[in-house]
Amino acid sequence: MLKKAVCLISGGLDSCITAYIAKKEGYEIYPLTIFYGQRHKKEIISAKKIADALKAKKHIIFNLDLSVFGGSSLTNKSIKIEKNNKLEDIGKKIPNTYVPARNTIFLSIALAYAEVLNADAIFIGATATDYSGYPDCRPEYFKAFQELANIATKIGTEGKKILIKAPLLNMRKSEIIKKGLELNAPIEKTWSCYSGEKKACGKCDSCLLRLKGFKEIGKKDPIDYKFLPKWYTL
Amino acid sequence: MLKKAVCLISGGLDSCITAYIAKKEGYEIYPLTIFYGQRHKKEIISAKKIADALKAKKHIIFNLDLSVFGGSSLTNKSIKIEKNNKLEDIGKKIPNTYVPARNTIFLSIALAYAEVLNADAIFIGATATDYSGYPDCRPEYFKAFQELANIATKIGTEGKKILIKAPLLNMRKSEIIKKGLELNAPIEKTWSCYSGEKKACGKCDSCLLRLKGFKEIGKKDPIDYKFLPKWYTL
Repeated sequence: MLKKAVCLISGGLDSCITAYIAKKEGYEIYPLTIFYGQRHKKEIISAKKIADALKAKKHIIFNLDLSVFGGSSLTNKSIKIEKNNKLEDIGKKIPNTYVPARNTIFLSIALAYAEVLNADAIFIGATATDYSGYPDCRPEYFKAFQELANIATKIGTEGKKILIKAPLLNMRKSEIIKKGLELNAPIEKTWSCYSGEKKACGKCDSCLLRLKGFKEIGKKDPIDYKFLPKWYTL
Repeated sequence: MLKKAVCLISGGLDSCITAYIAKKEGYEIYPLTIFYGQRHKKEIISAKKIADALKAKKHIIFNLDLSVFGGSSLTNKSIKIEKNNKLEDIGKKIPNTYVPARNTIFLSIALAYAEVLNADAIFIGATATDYSGYPDCRPEYFKAFQELANIATKIGTEGKKILIKAPLLNMRKSEIIKKGLELNAPIEKTWSCYSGEKKACGKCDSCLLRLKGFKEIGKKDPIDYKFLPKWYTL
């Protein structure tokens, strides 16, 4: 019997490549997308395209509305998205795009789904290298969630361990992209930009980190940008 | 400045009394009720009445639908609620009223809210004494969640600790009820029964544990029951 994995798919580059890594490792993929009231709704469309490309049986889009709490520029349109504009500043302080407890919520919902499926693993595309410094993307965070998951469930009390896997955690963005190309992941279908406009802005932390990754391996990002930084085009 | 606490209020007896304990401890109460697709919707009406009685400024009712995953008789109407009918059997095995990862999901959402509020604590009415044996009600579970919460948030990285408080954890049901009466908690407004009918069934684990608690302290439960077990009426 195939091992089963719940894969959190946001529609972004990292979670797409993570799902392709899970597939390569032999897991049967159960994509789970959480729509949490973020302004970049375009992510959801990308998530659907990625789930299709993965040929997954079922794609669950789970709704919850974190905008009722606010506290993040991603869920509260009255807060302007903090931009660094300089690559070297990214990760120095946690920007206002941080969504309180987002990964904890995502993983706990994935844990519920995984328990119902009797799944073997949960895959999440978090990375702690070229990232914005979010606390819930650090290795110690995932270690603590694994400890919690081991005792939180009924199947856990019966001896079944659901692995929390974040295979990109220690990879640089350029390595992630290289891996994605190697696995034929549909990078052209992904969406990373924080603003949910027609083209990616090319200015937010998420766009900058992505473009830097492509630049480092000398490849062109296949998606369209409204603006491209000089260092990328040169 | 008053300390702030997010109080998870289900509408049941335990969470109501927990909120009154938090109030007694001097916290400003922010009630949070999670409607997760459970069949006993009546709980929500009770939760509103309790939030009113607490004179809380704002009561957030947060919606998410765990019935898309199923896996529990509380969220899937095609699964019959397991009843023990015998008090001494309760807690021997985890019944199908167990909802996968429910407390993990509830606490993670409460954590998001607590971070936005810059709150000092989260109160949850879990108990591991007269209970159904749910894994996410055990003391070691809350210890693991506390460890996770300490490193999961941005305010955590800034040195603020949000306490996860489950003051009923080691109390017997009779002690909980005694405490509730002492604090003038509106027990008559609470709803514990798993079936969402007009009167409490008097047969499910939740009704049985509640009635047993009242019986032990020689008091009458103020809510209406459709059926009452012999040992209670005698």
